[in-house]
Amino acid sequence: MSNGDIFVGEVIGTAILILFGAGVCAAVTLRYSKARASGWVVISFGWGFGVLAGAYTAAPLSGGHLNPAVTLGIAVDTGEWGKVWVYVLGQFVGAMLGAVLCYLAYFAQFQANVRGTATTGDSADEPVPTLGVFSTVPEIRNPAANLVTEIIATAALVLPILAFGLTEGLGESGTLVLIVSLLVVGIGLSLGGPTGYAINPTRDLGPRIVHTFLPIPNKGTSDWGYAWIPVAGPLIGGALAGLVYNAAF
Amino acid sequence: MSNGDIFVGEVIGTAILILFGAGVCAAVTLRYSKARASGWVVISFGWGFGVLAGAYTAAPLSGGHLNPAVTLGIAVDTGEWGKVWVYVLGQFVGAMLGAVLCYLAYFAQFQANVRGTATTGDSADEPVPTLGVFSTVPEIRNPAANLVTEIIATAALVLPILAFGLTEGLGESGTLVLIVSLLVVGIGLSLGGPTGYAINPTRDLGPRIVHTFLPIPNKGTSDWGYAWIPVAGPLIGGALAGLVYNAAF
Amino acid sequence: MSNGDIFVGEVIGTAILILFGAGVCAAVTLRYSKARASGWVVISFGWGFGVLAGAYTAAPLSGGHLNPAVTLGIAVDTGEWGKVWVYVLGQFVGAMLGAVLCYLAYFAQFQANVRGTATTGDSADEPVPTLGVFSTVPEIRNPAANLVTEIIATAALVLPILAFGLTEGLGESGTLVLIVSLLVVGIGLSLGGPTGYAINPTRDLGPRIVHTFLPIPNKGTSDWGYAWIPVAGPLIGGALAGLVYNAAF
Amino acid sequence: MSNGDIFVGEVIGTAILILFGAGVCAAVTLRYSKARASGWVVISFGWGFGVLAGAYTAAPLSGGHLNPAVTLGIAVDTGEWGKVWVYVLGQFVGAMLGAVLCYLAYFAQFQANVRGTATTGDSADEPVPTLGVFSTVPEIRNPAANLVTEIIATAALVLPILAFGLTEGLGESGTLVLIVSLLVVGIGLSLGGPTGYAINPTRDLGPRIVHTFLPIPNKGTSDWGYAWIPVAGPLIGGALAGLVYNAAF
Repeated sequence: MSNGDIFVGEVIGTAILILFGAGVCAAVTLRYSKARASGWVVISFGWGFGVLAGAYTAAPLSGGHLNPAVTLGIAVDTGEWGKVWVYVLGQFVGAMLGAVLCYLAYFAQFQANVRGTATTGDSADEPVPTLGVFSTVPEIRNPAANLVTEIIATAALVLPILAFGLTEGLGESGTLVLIVSLLVVGIGLSLGGPTGYAINPTRDLGPRIVHTFLPIPNKGTSDWGYAWIPVAGPLIGGALAGLVYNAAF
Repeated sequence: MSNGDIFVGEVIGTAILILFGAGVCAAVTLRYSKARASGWVVISFGWGFGVLAGAYTAAPLSGGHLNPAVTLGIAVDTGEWGKVWVYVLGQFVGAMLGAVLCYLAYFAQFQANVRGTATTGDSADEPVPTLGVFSTVPEIRNPAANLVTEIIATAALVLPILAFGLTEGLGESGTLVLIVSLLVVGIGLSLGGPTGYAINPTRDLGPRIVHTFLPIPNKGTSDWGYAWIPVAGPLIGGALAGLVYNAAF
Repeated sequence: MSNGDIFVGEVIGTAILILFGAGVCAAVTLRYSKARASGWVVISFGWGFGVLAGAYTAAPLSGGHLNPAVTLGIAVDTGEWGKVWVYVLGQFVGAMLGAVLCYLAYFAQFQANVRGTATTGDSADEPVPTLGVFSTVPEIRNPAANLVTEIIATAALVLPILAFGLTEGLGESGTLVLIVSLLVVGIGLSLGGPTGYAINPTRDLGPRIVHTFLPIPNKGTSDWGYAWIPVAGPLIGGALAGLVYNAAF
Repeated sequence: MSNGDIFVGEVIGTAILILFGAGVCAAVTLRYSKARASGWVVISFGWGFGVLAGAYTAAPLSGGHLNPAVTLGIAVDTGEWGKVWVYVLGQFVGAMLGAVLCYLAYFAQFQANVRGTATTGDSADEPVPTLGVFSTVPEIRNPAANLVTEIIATAALVLPILAFGLTEGLGESGTLVLIVSLLVVGIGLSLGGPTGYAINPTRDLGPRIVHTFLPIPNKGTSDWGYAWIPVAGPLIGGALAGLVYNAAF
């Protein structure tokens, strides 16, 4: 795969992933969305099928990593580091592009994030914090615990991905990406409770930058004090998974 | 594929799609339905598995487009426009047929859409608007924003569909339609919040015509002022996806 | 396939189907169940994965019909009627066996279906009707409308099943049953609202007989006046699907 | 497969299974989790996708049993008992490891399991029992009925697993584990209501030991009086399934 194909594939695939992922968070949390308050099952399947959409689309161009933690885990395992920067660059650009697309798709909902809107005439409606659409926010703020959660959740993503390739017939039948997307659904359901499962540095950092600059009414904090955890945790978890995989398989 | 096979396949497949899709909206919104108020996850999976049912059924005859936006995206990509009219005609007829079948399947529920029915004796029961069973209704009425939402959501459907065909083994194993149907579930979960995701001109226009003529008690408006958006948005989104696909892949 | 294999396969497969299907209705409706009131999405996926479990298990022995409407639709299509009686007999025995297994699995819950139990000490707890665990109960009692609903829902099951076999690669990859089980999930989500979707004569009649004889406290009516509809509707729907399939494909 | 590979595979696979399974119970029941009270559908899919994650990961090393009831059912069927102890030992170690990983992932939530925490300042918040995160707790305590429920639910797991291997193409396409994981989702939805579906002796016993020793605030009882049922029931159910399979197939 050429550097150009890898870059384009990761940009498109990660943009689709974040459009779906940020989109489902917007769908569930913003006012005047048909999916408002539809719960954690919607969040988890939304992100998982975002992986399905993005990774199948990117697969023919770049293999569809869409996540520096995955790229890092593969590099630790294979020892091939030459194209890591192309992958990560594409993922970063794609994540920011996807966040902007989500903003456009939910433009009217973001504009209506004011006290008592003309749409409903209900003056008791209060604006909601909007960072959760773009980036992760922990339920209990505890840097060490939050970091450990992200490390474990990311290792639980990357170790299986590395091992899935060994299952006979899975790649040939084209269903490998489907399995990975259901794995991501599972991580959301099971391990997303404490921190909202970044498990992907660009998934969190790219949209946080976009959130910082978008003119959303009452958007609330972009919470840069927390931003290092969903970057460091996934990178540590991904590298750890690569090491465990090398040792065990 | 002959024109006759294409037409029959698209009629049957789109009728099944709309029977399931309108059906799940009836199931969740009409009174005296066992699935009433069962939420957005039911809506999204109902539509997605409608694609699964309709597209697998139509696949041997027509390939199972079931959506002018998909047909258009493929035409833009391949440059073959000769059979587009057959596909769209079949989709249109099928969408109207499916809406009638949904009306028949939920006939008793539609008949009971009156104030305080004999079934429950609860005089406080109020009729519900019925257009949402057949066609999309935006949460916030904002033509430009609604159009953009439909463009983005449809491009997020058609671009992956075009790219999925490149994944080795996916078509040969017969699971391609399954992946597309889960993609549609994902679009519903993530991008359906603002407008109810038409992402298909005939899915919206055909049932809206049927709704206009059906003798449903207290059916409410058919809202023709909004009808152009779920036609124009998906067509623009589908064409856009074809262009992006040609450029990137 | 020998008659003995077909019989054993259909008994085991249908018993598993009904164990899961009646089981999920028990899980959602009986008191002192962890899944109580968990909603329509649980019901629909429970029945669908019951098909997955039962049909994959029966497949090597009998092909896994598990439903006289499916057997009838195939017979109408192929013109081969010689083994229909073996299939239906096995399905009937299996459905009754599965209903008994469900009763045993939820034995303590059924025994606790009394007013104010010792388990909770809550004297306000009321017994619940139990027929819905075993057989279908319409939301609005309207024989003609209920019959039409069952005809449409069953045709929407059998026509796709007949057509799925034509999709290249689907059978060879072994995922055919998975697709059928998701189709059944979709029928539940979309078309189950009015009548509870029998779409299978033995699924309804076998467990209704079992319900009539089981010593469940406060079990309520077995509602034999309705029993002909979930038998006649699915048979008509299955035959209709066979005719449409023959004409269109 | 060497004893070493089997041991390592079962340790890793079962640890992942329990991390996901205990994780989703923590997600749904602990305070300050984003998935709190998200219901039975989340529990069932979380455990099922834990099987998917763990069994695909373990498959290349050990075949991915992850459950003594499965290992026992296969041994009864094949008559090969030589490696049973390696499997069970790995499963037991893995289950305890997974429970510890879940404790670490939800560390802040477990620490906050006190009356009125500083996190919310809500003095009305009460600690919740924590055993349900690690092991099963019956809704109605009735040893005979609970045992029967576990026997039936485990037989409904192991008999299909034994039969699935006979479906042509399923193993070659690599989707066998996916089907098994959806089967586990189905067992949870349909048969989990009475006892919480251990269907696996190490899944229950290993984490119960861990729960006994972990320093969780207000952790409540480890309920050792019940511990034999989720061990004995699954073993009986697994052996029964092996016998039925041998007789019928």
